[in-house]
Order: sequence, then structure tokens, then C-alpha cells
Amino acid sequence: MTHDALLSLLHDVAQGRRTPDEAVEAARGFVDLGFANVDVDRAERRGLPEVVFGLGKTSTQVADICRALHERGQRALATRLEPEVAEEVRSRLDDLPIEYDATARCLAIQPAVRAPDETRCRGPVLVVAAGTADRPVAAEAAFAARLCGNPVEELHDVGVAGLHRLLAHLDQLRSAAVLIIVAGLEGALPSVVAGLVGRPVIAVPTSVGYGASFGGVAALLGMLNSCAAGVTVVNIDNGFGAAYAATLMNRLD
Amino acid sequence: MTHDALLSLLHDVAQGRRTPDEAVEAARGFVDLGFANVDVDRAERRGLPEVVFGLGKTSTQVADICRALHERGQRALATRLEPEVAEEVRSRLDDLPIEYDATARCLAIQPAVRAPDETRCRGPVLVVAAGTADRPVAAEAAFAARLCGNPVEELHDVGVAGLHRLLAHLDQLRSAAVLIIVAGLEGALPSVVAGLVGRPVIAVPTSVGYGASFGGVAALLGMLNSCAAGVTVVNIDNGFGAAYAATLMNRLD
Amino acid sequence: MTHDALLSLLHDVAQGRRTPDEAVEAARGFVDLGFANVDVDRAERRGLPEVVFGLGKTSTQVADICRALHERGQRALATRLEPEVAEEVRSRLDDLPIEYDATARCLAIQPAVRAPDETRCRGPVLVVAAGTADRPVAAEAAFAARLCGNPVEELHDVGVAGLHRLLAHLDQLRSAAVLIIVAGLEGALPSVVAGLVGRPVIAVPTSVGYGASFGGVAALLGMLNSCAAGVTVVNIDNGFGAAYAATLMNRLD
Amino acid sequence: MTHDALLSLLHDVAQGRRTPDEAVEAARGFVDLGFANVDVDRAERRGLPEVVFGLGKTSTQVADICRALHERGQRALATRLEPEVAEEVRSRLDDLPIEYDATARCLAIQPAVRAPDETRCRGPVLVVAAGTADRPVAAEAAFAARLCGNPVEELHDVGVAGLHRLLAHLDQLRSAAVLIIVAGLEGALPSVVAGLVGRPVIAVPTSVGYGASFGGVAALLGMLNSCAAGVTVVNIDNGFGAAYAATLMNRLD
Amino acid sequence: MTHDALLSLLHDVAQGRRTPDEAVEAARGFVDLGFANVDVDRAERRGLPEVVFGLGKTSTQVADICRALHERGQRALATRLEPEVAEEVRSRLDDLPIEYDATARCLAIQPAVRAPDETRCRGPVLVVAAGTADRPVAAEAAFAARLCGNPVEELHDVGVAGLHRLLAHLDQLRSAAVLIIVAGLEGALPSVVAGLVGRPVIAVPTSVGYGASFGGVAALLGMLNSCAAGVTVVNIDNGFGAAYAATLMNRLD
Amino acid sequence: MTHDALLSLLHDVAQGRRTPDEAVEAARGFVDLGFANVDVDRAERRGLPEVVFGLGKTSTQVADICRALHERGQRALATRLEPEVAEEVRSRLDDLPIEYDATARCLAIQPAVRAPDETRCRGPVLVVAAGTADRPVAAEAAFAARLCGNPVEELHDVGVAGLHRLLAHLDQLRSAAVLIIVAGLEGALPSVVAGLVGRPVIAVPTSVGYGASFGGVAALLGMLNSCAAGVTVVNIDNGFGAAYAATLMNRLD
Amino acid sequence: MTHDALLSLLHDVAQGRRTPDEAVEAARGFVDLGFANVDVDRAERRGLPEVVFGLGKTSTQVADICRALHERGQRALATRLEPEVAEEVRSRLDDLPIEYDATARCLAIQPAVRAPDETRCRGPVLVVAAGTADRPVAAEAAFAARLCGNPVEELHDVGVAGLHRLLAHLDQLRSAAVLIIVAGLEGALPSVVAGLVGRPVIAVPTSVGYGASFGGVAALLGMLNSCAAGVTVVNIDNGFGAAYAATLMNRLD
Amino acid sequence: MTHDALLSLLHDVAQGRRTPDEAVEAARGFVDLGFANVDVDRAERRGLPEVVFGLGKTSTQVADICRALHERGQRALATRLEPEVAEEVRSRLDDLPIEYDATARCLAIQPAVRAPDETRCRGPVLVVAAGTADRPVAAEAAFAARLCGNPVEELHDVGVAGLHRLLAHLDQLRSAAVLIIVAGLEGALPSVVAGLVGRPVIAVPTSVGYGASFGGVAALLGMLNSCAAGVTVVNIDNGFGAAYAATLMNRLD
Repeated sequence: MTHDALLSLLHDVAQGRRTPDEAVEAARGFVDLGFANVDVDRAERRGLPEVVFGLGKTSTQVADICRALHERGQRALATRLEPEVAEEVRSRLDDLPIEYDATARCLAIQPAVRAPDETRCRGPVLVVAAGTADRPVAAEAAFAARLCGNPVEELHDVGVAGLHRLLAHLDQLRSAAVLIIVAGLEGALPSVVAGLVGRPVIAVPTSVGYGASFGGVAALLGMLNSCAAGVTVVNIDNGFGAAYAATLMNRLD
Repeated sequence: MTHDALLSLLHDVAQGRRTPDEAVEAARGFVDLGFANVDVDRAERRGLPEVVFGLGKTSTQVADICRALHERGQRALATRLEPEVAEEVRSRLDDLPIEYDATARCLAIQPAVRAPDETRCRGPVLVVAAGTADRPVAAEAAFAARLCGNPVEELHDVGVAGLHRLLAHLDQLRSAAVLIIVAGLEGALPSVVAGLVGRPVIAVPTSVGYGASFGGVAALLGMLNSCAAGVTVVNIDNGFGAAYAATLMNRLD
Repeated sequence: MTHDALLSLLHDVAQGRRTPDEAVEAARGFVDLGFANVDVDRAERRGLPEVVFGLGKTSTQVADICRALHERGQRALATRLEPEVAEEVRSRLDDLPIEYDATARCLAIQPAVRAPDETRCRGPVLVVAAGTADRPVAAEAAFAARLCGNPVEELHDVGVAGLHRLLAHLDQLRSAAVLIIVAGLEGALPSVVAGLVGRPVIAVPTSVGYGASFGGVAALLGMLNSCAAGVTVVNIDNGFGAAYAATLMNRLD
Repeated sequence: MTHDALLSLLHDVAQGRRTPDEAVEAARGFVDLGFANVDVDRAERRGLPEVVFGLGKTSTQVADICRALHERGQRALATRLEPEVAEEVRSRLDDLPIEYDATARCLAIQPAVRAPDETRCRGPVLVVAAGTADRPVAAEAAFAARLCGNPVEELHDVGVAGLHRLLAHLDQLRSAAVLIIVAGLEGALPSVVAGLVGRPVIAVPTSVGYGASFGGVAALLGMLNSCAAGVTVVNIDNGFGAAYAATLMNRLD
Repeated sequence: MTHDALLSLLHDVAQGRRTPDEAVEAARGFVDLGFANVDVDRAERRGLPEVVFGLGKTSTQVADICRALHERGQRALATRLEPEVAEEVRSRLDDLPIEYDATARCLAIQPAVRAPDETRCRGPVLVVAAGTADRPVAAEAAFAARLCGNPVEELHDVGVAGLHRLLAHLDQLRSAAVLIIVAGLEGALPSVVAGLVGRPVIAVPTSVGYGASFGGVAALLGMLNSCAAGVTVVNIDNGFGAAYAATLMNRLD
Repeated sequence: MTHDALLSLLHDVAQGRRTPDEAVEAARGFVDLGFANVDVDRAERRGLPEVVFGLGKTSTQVADICRALHERGQRALATRLEPEVAEEVRSRLDDLPIEYDATARCLAIQPAVRAPDETRCRGPVLVVAAGTADRPVAAEAAFAARLCGNPVEELHDVGVAGLHRLLAHLDQLRSAAVLIIVAGLEGALPSVVAGLVGRPVIAVPTSVGYGASFGGVAALLGMLNSCAAGVTVVNIDNGFGAAYAATLMNRLD
Repeated sequence: MTHDALLSLLHDVAQGRRTPDEAVEAARGFVDLGFANVDVDRAERRGLPEVVFGLGKTSTQVADICRALHERGQRALATRLEPEVAEEVRSRLDDLPIEYDATARCLAIQPAVRAPDETRCRGPVLVVAAGTADRPVAAEAAFAARLCGNPVEELHDVGVAGLHRLLAHLDQLRSAAVLIIVAGLEGALPSVVAGLVGRPVIAVPTSVGYGASFGGVAALLGMLNSCAAGVTVVNIDNGFGAAYAATLMNRLD
Repeated sequence: MTHDALLSLLHDVAQGRRTPDEAVEAARGFVDLGFANVDVDRAERRGLPEVVFGLGKTSTQVADICRALHERGQRALATRLEPEVAEEVRSRLDDLPIEYDATARCLAIQPAVRAPDETRCRGPVLVVAAGTADRPVAAEAAFAARLCGNPVEELHDVGVAGLHRLLAHLDQLRSAAVLIIVAGLEGALPSVVAGLVGRPVIAVPTSVGYGASFGGVAALLGMLNSCAAGVTVVNIDNGFGAAYAATLMNRLD
């Protein structure tokens, strides 16, 4: 916590804008929910609030963390929520304006007042999926990138086995500010795309495949060994992580 | 090749600025050296010229490719050159202004006229190395990032086993435009740093370690699974790739 | 069996305190239940009785081993019991004082007379979980450590992506006698904690994660390669094993 | 051995064209050199004679097997021979017409009478190498394919990071009868090429790369998971095997 | 698209045989279904139309792609369709002549006019399965090979543990134009067969096995390391890919 | 087929003991059931008839193969049959004397006339299981070994964490003719036992464990690296294979 | 830095015991040597000073770090130093009292004043090596443990293939305060020892072995899966790490 | 030590046949050489004396252990000794009758009096090597098997790519008492051989190969997954272990 932030906090208490309890929490930078310490300082430090990874959490836990973020004026995003879990979360938060995208398995709650700085971007984030089966991961990336304030465009089913499908969109590829390339199987698409453009390319391997794809390992290794310089890679199926990184690369402030 | 570029090319021939042979080469976008097809169009497409990966190439091959790039007005960069190979390259190119950094194992030849657009950047690229043994990879990243026109800063030996060494440089971490974090062993440093800053973090695992580090695999997996959102990863020991990606993220044009 | 122990056993038989059958069993040090040889001598050799690993055992088998231990005055602990199995065990042992913790999936039966030496400890065992999803493994560690006579404290959701959550508890970290650090994903928390304290740190990787976490392998490798000296590691998700080791480190006798 | 072959053999003995010893050897189909059983029947069964894998054999062993094949009128090919070993073999066989290619590390001795059926082919075998460092493996493939009677063409350094280099040779790609695609790193080239042509594509992963290429595993997995149907794969660096397979696909008889 | 093809297309529009919309689609070479870009140019480029990989697609998606192919006069083939999914596809396409093979899990729709060039082959494709459990993969290969216009023969349960079962069919092995060898466990059959014949052998590892077969990895590695030269390999369980490759090797045009 | 066997076969036909069809089948050595070629010659070649691996076979297939073996006077053994499958097989073969062991998941049908040579053995086969959870694999080994004519003894739950349980049975260990040691986790038991006895020790790793046991890989590697010379190893969970090998070692003929 | 420590530091400056420069360094807790930030606060935080991992450092770097530690009154320990490197370090530090152990490859410099608290221990640390080839790792553990103030005992070549060699030292095993068990191959020794004692057992896998030992992976997995509860594990060949952990467990303060 | 053995030992002392020191050593069953505890009781327990694994031992250590065994009337065998090391051992033991086989890299010293029971065997041990490059491992197996008293036969270069070479020796295969099959690459030979014989087959994978052979892993997995029942496997390149196991299977006593 910076000196200025602390001073401002103390003024708030002095003038009754915060209770002492609220000030202690703000000074610590996290909210203790018992089962979780919500990092409410993250938006300050990183420019983007904490995100709830839904896998392995109960709907009650997801709902409680979302509410805690919302109550502190932050945007809530939860990923990896199956529709039935999302439905339970929604019923627990039925007073809040929830969006849910079943393909992306993402849920979001916009804050009452949107942060203006999230919308100053260098240009569109383009999410490209190699095959039809890669769509859920691409959808997660697109949902999260949009929520973080980026203009988002999408291209689907433009894998390297039929290059003309990709080359037909060359202008779109070249006008993007950041590209997120989602591919399973051998994961060759990021190399081909990166060779054609002069912007950051984030490669997302997916677990699409069978046999020697080993749940996405073949695609992951392909992307890490890309012959096109400058490709960076995130974990298998990690559409959200790619969107988060793209936002950091895209925003101007 | 765009329509405009083609038209301009034909004008050059008509006015004697290029021979027809040179025009064919320019139209094709690559120079055939017999053993290699140098991609002289890459600077156009990607904003950065082709780079020579030195491992497994003879000094003659490295020298010939560098000369071909230089003759076409492009900057030449060769990586993974051991000192004795670099010395041979230098003797073959003794008419050119060669720089060589033995720690980074990188060699560069600046073009006669430097491209002005390489220097409009968002801010400094900060290269952080977790341990002393990670320095050669960090040096490769720093050398390449500088060559690509970024202001570069460096921090060494600030691994997570003694957090105070890292936290002592918090301001520098937060004022960087892009961060390249180089670490071997368990590769935990990118997670810690990414949690503290709001800029793109590129993680470079190194092969530093022994036993169950498996030549950098432990660090690579650690970085791919970072609990701090938005970390992107390059191949083990790939300092150059991180610098290339950082440049794409950093430059404004 | 030592000479003294044998002599004492023979006295017991001579004075009717044990039947000859009981004496044979005691001399052999194990009870043959047909499907299992319960190691009733383990409490003598290791200071802690045999523990029942529930996975892959029927509720009848678990119940029979627990009863055998209880009948010989030893504490019974069974791990990895899903609630429905635990319920069946309870119904088979409804004459005994069973405790069951559904989060930890552990069941325990205290002996009629508690061993006094279990409670002389150096200080508290602190169980720290990096994320909310790591709680079941942390709960197993805490349950088992408590049962073995240690004072136990717990910290949750203090992962390295938000260091201030961890640093807020620095005093508690430094006053623990032994620390059990439970983490999935990249498993960086033990390195950070171990760098801050002067007590034994036992790292427990968890299978929390997806993609390149490979069921906990990324965390396991991270912990084995910790840059903080002196971290020791147990198997993935092995909360119980960490508690057992912590007890051996903590007790004074 | 077929009935006709046996009959013909017996006629040879009856008419003094073979000694009984030679006939026994022919009937058995192999020559016992003590350390090796040379399969002299292979040319009959498979249409191509046995090939000597040089790695791990002494120069004496290589020379003896080559001579045994030559004496029976068969072509001798030895692969994976370093120049110094090849020189020793040559000195042991200085009465025979030896060819040696140092890049391919292959040695060959043509038979006195060349088999006519080896030259009826469907068309050229095209060997394509993704990068300069893949050349030795490509050279092995080209050398062996030529020796087996195929017209051979070669393309070098046409990796997917600069697609225009590849597309400039589209006609040549499409006029080949069989294509051997040699690539290291992520091994994406076979997918791109196979998507463009209607002929068999044999993919050869190479050990070119570092870090997460794992000695060619990344390229191998990429090729096995190719999104372009019909790509078949051979072992890492196995240029010879690809040439052998290409010959079986190419020859008409 | 070649110059001739473009000219022909424009004539079609001029003479009302295609609408301008249809001409644009033909010129682009793919049909955009929203969720997929069907590569209708593939039959032109590769001689075989696009194939639908069923795994991970909804029955609606499969049906829509099949219909798009059928409407453009191309044969539709979908693989990896479980019976219940196939039934749904069939109900959506009940106006079309669907074939479905439950063992092969393949569905096909023949075009109204069959391409004549698909039937000029060098000879039969022989599909050989090592064990009874390998039959589904062999059936996929046989179904696809037949559909692509090859005469197909099949052999089952001729694994190397009882060589006489294989040797009893030596004539059939030797009269095949291309051989597809399907095997799990140690995957030794392709080596033995390839040693006996002079035609291309495509090895298909299957996931049949347990323990150290690692889902087909043991068979895959065995085949990649075959001591019989010229064996080429496809992904684990990839019967279709083997059939596609066999067709490219077998057809004469 | 030996000359004598062929002669005997022809006599059988001459004297009406076999139809010509039966003689052809006997000469070929296998029975073609369409989906399987039952190797009825195996008992002749190897001294033990073919065994049905149940996993992945339908109950009809299992029943048909068993009947085929039984009709030719051979013992039928099927392994890896879950109780419900076994029940279906039994209902299809209700005219035959079926034994089924649910723990071993093995089913057997004794031939009308038992082969006398199966019972001349060197001594007992001792099956030792390290833990209670290893029992199903041990039971498979014991069932199969008994069926093959060996006297069989069993020891359970004598893992190395409580050595006295093992040492209590030292005489039994030393009087066995062959030892089958079944263990999961770290698989240390075979090393300890082999160090104590002078008879063949067959180690069977089991998939018992979690986390870094990787489905039995830890135990498998432990056994392959045993510091006690002469331990040989079979696949993970392969109780039957161990019994088969033990029979070959144990029988005298 | 605690409040008391800061106060004491300021007193030092006031009274001339430290220059202001020295005070800044002490307040930061590390010394910047340019290539390294020596963590001079570690002895305060962890009770043991920083240790120099020699692998990949030049002799100059090692010497400079050692001198920096020595000048601040701390003990210097450098591990993984080959004799020739150690000799160079010694010549650079010939004014200091260096100890070097060639088997352990460790070098140490005692501080002028030894810290008294290092010698209050619970009892001896016993280092046990399974085989002769494991000695260098055991020697590293013993050297480091002694240096850290523990009484150290050693046992060699007591592997499980000859249990009597181990059991002959049962008393010594049981009287140790902490046990470090060093083993390669299958790594079974820690399980056997831990089953016999009631003290912490630290298992150190070594890279001793060949083939499927995979450079120590077999031993590592064996130890992580130990059936004896409470075994904790360090990285392959990490004798120093085991000693460090043992010291934290053993010391009383 | 049995009661009888102890009694006999005491008689020896009483009658001056052993000194008390010798008796203590005999009672303990091992000789402490400082760096090694030679297990002189092993010949008693296992029927075969301890063997010296040469890798990683100095020539002095090897010589000292060999002498210790020889002085106690036991046969000494040392494996994995390179010629130069063997020469040093020989010079240290020049008073003893040393045999050394450079291909097998084995050294042996026969005891003055050979144990008679080593020569009662069931029949020949047949060592079969698939390829020429597998010979060193096969030679180790043959050397060790001969030394242990077995009649040994050898077959070389009979891999499955040319089955007729193997089938030409069918009688020899069938008359062996135990078969050791040595193979690299895909390791298919043990399956083929085991399918033809009724005796124990021990499979030895070798590290012969390249690329996806992964240093013998492909062969190892192939053998563990053999479709021929009853094959047992030893570690990669472990010719000695196979010989040891074969001896235990072959001897009659």
C-alpha cells in the first residue's frame, strides 16, 4: 500500500466514508471469507481484478467470492462453470446482473460503475480457432477479453490443412492488435499466423485430439518449439489466461 | 506482396534502381543461398528481420546469411554462437561492424541506416534473472531486446528464497513496460512478479538445475501453471524468443 | 522384540494377564485378520500406530482393522474414506466413539487411554493451503496432525499471486514449530515460505490444476526443485504423510 | 523359398553353376558371417536388399557385410557412418566402387549389374527440408532414394514461418509422386504440405531443436497428430526409412 | 485456384449455371457454416474430399457438414460416431442415402455421381488386425478404404504369438498392393509382416492393452522403431488416417 | 507341425477318427471363428493352451472361444472378466463345468481329461502380496497358477514397512520353488524377498497407489531396478502372466 | 527487519560501529556483488546462512560470494565443486581457513566466531548409504550436516538385498535423532528403515543406476510412494538439501 | 544364520579352524571393507555369491571386493568393467587366475574349489541376440551364465525382419532349458520366440536404437506388453541379471 493510498484511507475514516473495519480490510488488501482470502487489491496492483477459477469450487463458494468483489465495486468473472453450477450461482445472486455464456462456461457480473481505463486499447484482439472442436476454449478467451474491455473479433475453423481458409482473412489477421491462436492436434496454426503478422501472438494449446496428442501435450510442445519467433504460450485449454495476457498487451494508459 | 509494393518494384526496374534479377528476388521475398532461403520479406511482414539460430550451422553458413541480410539493408542477429564460432564469423565478415557478447553468445551487425520505427516504445523492457546461473539466458534476452530498439534494464539474483531482494526493486518492476522473467529450478519467480505488476510478463524457463529439474522441464511446467493470470511462456532457455515477443508488445507505431 | 519385552510378556502369561494366544500374537507383533496383517507393534517401533489407507478397501475391511487396533488399546485412523463408506464403517462400529471429517475424508477412534507422550511437542504445526481447492488435502493433514497430538493451526488461500495475504501472517509463520505447505498448480508457495522461516517445511503437492499440471506433477517437480534449501516433499495429495512426518519432527520425548 | 526357386537352385547345382555349399546358403536365404546373418533373400522378398545400419558397428563389420552383399550381386548401402569410419571401410574395400556422401553419412556400392526393375517409377521423390539444420537427415533420405532407383528432387529451408518460400514451389510440390518432408522444432511442415497435394506424404521428424523439443519428440508428436489426413511418420532422424518407404510407394512393376 | 478453373467458373456465372454467390464460394474454396469452414476445394487439391472427425462435434454439426459436402456433389464420410449420435445424424439427413457401420463407428453418404478416378487402383488394400480387440480400428480403416474406392481385404487375429496363423496367409499378404497393419500391446506385427512383403506397410498402433501399454504408446514406439525398413506409422487408433494414406499410395491416375 | 504329427493326423482321417475338415484345422493349428483364430496348437508348442484375455471382448466372444477350446479337449481360462460378464458367459455355456473367482476375475473350464504332465512340478508356487489392495492381482496369479497344475501357497499383507510380518514366514519363503511377488506403491518387496531366497522371483507391479505412483509405474521401475539380482518383471497388474511364467519354471517333464 | 534490529543498527551507526553504507546494506539484507545478491539476512531469518551452489558458477564467483559471507562473520559453504575448481577457489582465498572434501565435493570456511546455537541438537544425524556408488551424495550430506553443527554418524553399503547388513546396526538406527537415507536403483532402503524407527527419515534418491533408473527417477518415485508413513523426500542427488532439512529438525533453541 | 550353521561355526573355533574374529564375521554374514560390506552370506542364502557391479567403482574398490570374495572361497564376478579398468584390477590381483571378456566387459575369478551343485542343470541356456549391435549385452549374459555353471549356447542376428534366419534354428530354440532373448529397437523378438517354445523366456531390452527408442524404453515397453504369455523382463542392458535369473530357473538341487 502506497503512502498516498494510506493517507487517503485515513481521511475516509476521519470523514466517516469508511468504518474502521472497512479501513483495516482495505489496508490489508484482502477480504477473509473463511475459505478464501479475496484479493481486492489486485485491481489496484495489476489493473484487473481477481478472477474466480470455478473448477473444484462449490456454487456457494463461487457466489460468495463474486458478491464480495461486487460489493467492493469490482467486476466479477468466474470461469470453468458448468451450466448447472452457473444456475445455482445465479439463484444465489439473483439480485445481481449476471451474464453467463454456456459455450465459454464463463459467468460475469459487471460493476455498477465501469472503470474507464479498461477501454483505451491499441486495437482489436483477434481470437482464432483452428478447428470446430477448439471453440469452447476460444469462446472462453473471447468472453474474457471482451469483459476486460477489449474489442474482440473471432475466426473459426481455419486450420493449416486448408491454408486458403486462413489466407482469405489475411487483412483481418494483420489489423489485429493482439492475436490469440487456439489449436489442438499438432498446434501448427500459431507458427503459420505469427509468420504473417507483426503483432503479439499468444498460442493456446487445447486438449482436442486423441492417442499421441496426450491431452494437448503435442500441441503445447509444438507451440513452445514454434519456428516463428515471438510466439508465447499459455497452459493447455487456458483461454482465460490468454485473454488476460492480451489485455495487458493491448491496453494503453 | 501487396499491389502497391509490386507497382513500386516495377517502377524501380523501369528507372534502373534495381536490376530485373533483384526485382525477382524482391518479389519472391527470399534469397536462395543454396543451403538456405533467407526470408528478406520478414522485416516487412513482421516488423523485425529474420534471425539466425546459430546452433548446428557452420560459421560459413552464419556468415553468408548475415551478409545477405546486411546487403539488403537489414539488421543481422545470430544467436547461440560459441566464442570460437563467433570468431570465425567475424574473420569472414571483417569488413562489417560486428558486435559480439560472449555471455549472451549473440552476434549482431547493425544496418547502415537504422529503422526509425524501432525506437518508439511504451517503456523499458526489464529482464529479471532469478539466479546467477540464469545469466546467460537473461543476457541473450537483454542483447536481443536492445538490438530490437527497446530500452532495456536488468535485475539479477532476486530469487524467491530471499524475497526482500526482489521487493527492494518494486518500483523498477512496476515502471517497466514489459517484463521478461528468467528462472530455472522451480521457476516460481514469474508468478510472484506477475502478482505485483500490471504489465505483460514473459516467463523464460532455464535448464539450470539437476535431478528432477529434467533440463528445465520443472521450471517450464511451473510457469505454464502459474497461479498469477496472464503469464505467457516461451521455450526453455529461449531468451531471444522472449525478447522478440517483448518487442512486439512494446513498440508503438 | 527386545529381551525385556519378551520377559515382560512371559510374566503376563504366568500371571494370567494374557492368554498364551495373546502372547503369541504380541510376540509376533501383528494380528492376522486373513485379508490383512495388522502391525500392532508399530506404535512400539515408530511411536505412532498403523494407519488404514481407505482407498481400495471395503468398509468391512476398514472396520475390522479399526476394531483390531482399538481392542489392543491403540488409536485408529483411516484416511481416504468417502462419506458413504465412512457411514458404513460407523454402522459397523457403532459401539465405538467415531469421529469423521468429511472435508478431510478421515475417520478416527481414540483409544480409551490416550498415550501421554503424544502431547509433548515443540510447538504448533501450521498447515498452510495455497488455494481454496487445496483445502481437502490440507484438512487431511490438519486432522491427522491433531490426532497425533500436535497443536494445529491453519491458513488458507494465501498463494503467491497476492503476496500480501501471506505476509500479513508472517508472525504466525515464524512461530510454528513445523510447517506443512499444501499447494497445487506451480507449487511455488513452499519456496517462498521456507525462505522466511527457520523451521522444517514439508511441501505437499496437490493434484489441483489442469492441462500441463499433469495431476500434480508440475507442483511436485516445483517443490523438489525448490530454490529454498531444506524443503522436503511427500507424494501428491499426501496430507496424511505430511502430518505423520511433522509429528516425528515435532514431538519431544 | 518357393517351389520354383528351389527347383531352379537344384538345376544350378546339377549344372555346376553353384557349389552345394552355395546352394545351401541360397536355400537358407542368409549368410552367416559369425557376428551377423546377412539376409541375402531380402531383395527377393522385399524388392530391396538388406541395408547396413552403421551405428554401433565396427568398420570391419560394415566392410564384411558390404562385401558379402556385393559378392552375391546385390547393392550395398550403409547408413550412419561418420567420415572416419567410412574411410576405414573404404580402405578395406578398395577394390570396390564406393560412393560416400559426408552430409548424408551414407556409403554405397553399386552391383556390377543393376536391377532393371528399380527404375520403373511413378515419378520424382521430392525431399523437402524445413530448415538448414535438417539437411543431414534430408541428405540421407535423398541419397538412399536415389540409390533405390528413384528420380529425386530437393527443396531446402522452406519452413512455415515464411510461407511464401514454400508456396513459390507449389508446382514442384504438386508434380512429385511421393513427398518426404523433413522437419524439426514443431514439425508443422508436413501438415501444410499435405494439405496442398494429392500424393503420399512421409513425415520425418528431426532432433533439431532444444529445450522442449526433447530431441525431436515435439516434431514427432506434431506429425503424428497432423490435421492433414494421410500423413505417415517414421522415427526421428530416420531419413533412410523414409526413402525406403517412398521407394515401395513409387515403384511400378 | 488455377487460371483455368477461374475461367470455367466465370463461364458458369455468365451462363447461369451458378449464381454469383455460389461462384464466390467456389473461388474461395470453402463454405462458411458459421461454426465451420468446410473445405470444398480439398477434393480438387488432394483428390479426396474433407472428412468429418466426429469426436467432440454435435450431431447437428456433423449433419450440417455432411449435407454441405453432399450438396456440392462430394462424398461425405464421418468417423468416430457412436451409434446414438449416428442415429441422430441419420434422422437429420433422412432424405440422403446413409450407410453406418457400428463396429467402425463410421458413417458415409455417397455422392449422386461417383468420381470415376477413385477406382483405378494398383490392387487390394489388405487390413490386418493382430488381435480381436483391435477390430474396431481395423474396421474403421477398412470402411474408409472401401469408401475411397479401394478393393479391400481383411485378416483378423493373426498376432505374432502364433506365427502359423499369419504364415497360413502368406500369399494373401504378398498379393496386396498396400498393407495396413493394426496392432496394440507391443505392436510387433508390422515388423514381421514388412519383413515378408515388398509393398508399403502402414502401421496403426491401437490403445488395446493395459499397464505399461500406456494407452497405445508401447505399440506406437514399437512401430516407430521397427527393424523392418520402410514401415510408416500413423497416430494411435487412427484407422481412418491409414486408409487415407493407403488410398494415396494405391490409386493410379 | 512335425512329420510325426502329420502322419498321426493322416492315420486319424484314414480310420475315421477325424473328418477331413477337422484334419485341415488340426494341420493349420488354429480354428477360425470369424472374429478370432483360436490357436489350438499352442498347447502342443508351449505346453499350455491359449488363454482368453477378457478385457474388450464381448461375453459371446469369450464364450465362443472357451467352447472351441473345450471341444478340442483343452482347458479354457479367461481372465479380466467382471462378474456380470462372467455371468453372461456362464449362461451361454451352462452345459460346461465353469469355475469363476470374483476376486481374481478369472473363469475356467477344466477339460474332460486333465493333462497328466501339468502336475509334475518342482514344488509350490508362493504368491506374496505386499498389501491388502494388491489382493485381486495376487488372486489372479494364484488362480491361474493352480489351474496350470502348480501347488499354490499365498501370503498377504507382508509389506516392508513392517518387516517382522515377512520374516515370520521365512521358512515358507525358502521352501517355495518359484515366488510371485505382487506389490504396488514403491514395489520394494521383491528386492527384499529375492535377497532372502535362492529360487526364481517374478515381480508383479500393481496399479495400487495414487499421485506419483502413476498407475503402477513407480512400482514397475522399482522392480526393474531391483538391487537383488535375478528378479524378473511382468507388466503392471499382470498376475496371469506371472503365473504362466512360474509354471514354465516349475514344471518338470 | 524487525523494529529492534533497526534500532540496534541505528545505534551502531551513531556510535561508529558501522559506516552508513554498511548500515544500508544491513537494512536491505543483501550484498550486491554485481553478478549476485548475497542474502546476508538469511542466517537471521532461517538460522543458517546462504549456501553457494557451485554448479555453473566460475571459481571467481564462488570465491567472491564466500568472501562476502566470511567478511560478515558468516560461515561459507559451497557445494558441487570439482577438485580443480576448488583448487582455484582456494588460491583466490588463500588467506582464509578453507576445508575441502573431494568425495563430497564441498568446500567450507568457518567463521572466526562460531555461532553457539548451532550445537544444541537433539542427537546424532545418521547418514545411511545403500550402496558404494551412493557415497558421494552421502558424503555431501554428512559434510554439510557436520558443518551445520550436528553430530554425524555414517553407515555404508547396507542395501536391502542383504538385510542382515542393515539389521546388524539396528541400535544405531534407533538412536539417531534424524536419519538421512541415500539410495539409487529402486530406492527401497528408506521404506525399510522408516518402518524400524520413530524419528524423521529424509530420503535422498541418487542417480546411481542405468537403463530404467532414468537418472534417479526410479528411486525418486519409489521414495515418494513409500509404504512407510512419514518419509519425506528431496531432489535426486541433493545430499546438501537433506542435511539442511535435518539440521532444522534436529536443532533445539 | 541357522542353528546348525552357528553350531558348526562354534566347533570351528573350538578346533582352531577359524579365529574368533573370522567367526564373528561369518556370524554377521558380511565383511566390512570400510567402503563396502561384502555379503559373504549370499552364496548360502541364494546359492550364488555377491556380484560386483563395476560402474562407478574405482579399480581399487573392485579389486578389494574380488579378493575378499576369493579369500572366502567364493567365485568373484565383476560386470561393466571397461578394458582399462579391468587391466588395473588385473594388475592389483596378479596372483589370482583372472578371466576377462572385453565384449562382455566382465571379469571373473574362479574359486580354488568349484561348488559341485552349480553344474546340475536342466539343460542349456540359449542366449539369442536380435542384431549385431546387441552383442555386448548378449555376451554379458552368456559370460555370466557360463560362470554360474550353465551350459550356454548362442545365436546372433536373427531379428524378426527376416524370420527365416530364426526359423532355421527352431530345433535349437526348442531344446533349450531357458532362453534369454536380447533385443533393442522395437524388442519384438521375445514375443515371436516365446510363441514357439515351452520354456521360460527372459527378455532383455537393449539401448540399441535412436530417436524414439529413448535409450531402450521402446524395447522395454514392447517386452512388458508381449502378446506371448509368460515372458518376463529385466532392466535395459541387464545381461547379467538375465543370466542370474536363468541360473535360478535352470539348476536342479
